[in-house]
Amino acid sequence: MLIQMKVEGMLFDPRSNMYILLLKEVNGNGTLPIWIGKPEADSIALALGKVETPRPLTHDLIKNIAENLKIKISKIIVTDIQDNTYYALICLNDGKKETLVDSRPSDAVAVALRVNAPIFVEDRIMEMKSSDELEEWLKNLKPEDFGNIM
Amino acid sequence: MLIQMKVEGMLFDPRSNMYILLLKEVNGNGTLPIWIGKPEADSIALALGKVETPRPLTHDLIKNIAENLKIKISKIIVTDIQDNTYYALICLNDGKKETLVDSRPSDAVAVALRVNAPIFVEDRIMEMKSSDELEEWLKNLKPEDFGNIM
Repeated sequence: MLIQMKVEGMLFDPRSNMYILLLKEVNGNGTLPIWIGKPEADSIALALGKVETPRPLTHDLIKNIAENLKIKISKIIVTDIQDNTYYALICLNDGKKETLVDSRPSDAVAVALRVNAPIFVEDRIMEMKSSDELEEWLKNLKPEDFGNIM
Repeated sequence: MLIQMKVEGMLFDPRSNMYILLLKEVNGNGTLPIWIGKPEADSIALALGKVETPRPLTHDLIKNIAENLKIKISKIIVTDIQDNTYYALICLNDGKKETLVDSRPSDAVAVALRVNAPIFVEDRIMEMKSSDELEEWLKNLKPEDFGNIM
């Protein structure tokens, strides 16, 4: 079963030197943290802030390729976790059939935000997602921890 | 008229804190330097080195989207320079018609290298490309200057 999510925020994780993209259930309180790299975090931050850049960034290019080909990016789905690597699918629809393309979740979310495509997570991911230590850390975050790149 | 180019190398430009992607004429000696950002330079370096990453990078995702949709990325063209900003087009072919998508040259080259698409430059760009100072600087580069991220 798919659970619809929204982007709750991003924060920098000094332990891994990566960014954490926090997804939160649209109809619930469950959160899913996904570790992502700086270029993708920057791109997601620009999309969240609806910042227009003079030239298309790489995820804008993906949006433009789809639009030019009259392909709708209908949804994205975070599908699996293996060894702390997250897997996602981008669903493309040409009006006749759906095509699924393997993607990192960070790319998938950066694209979804640009085309207002809904973000889903397989429900079993929500159960396998995180360690107690991470849960504790996330619970103790203060609002100001989220501010840096939002 | 279009001039076919190949990637000659990349080097770091400490003056701008950016990378320079050097294109060289396939049938000639003309070179075209293009200033690009670190994420795109990293992606181009991985493509040049034919490095396989465990998960698809953003430009691999573009390649995979095209392949899944049975779209051929037939060529890329660097088309214009305005105020030190370079413009390019990615040419997509579905077997019936060609679609042109606006792109930064760095994204276009990162994609072209992954699908073995030829790289072209509008000939008038080669004439307007660079200052005497840059020409001098490029002429005095030593081979070791190119090694860092290749």
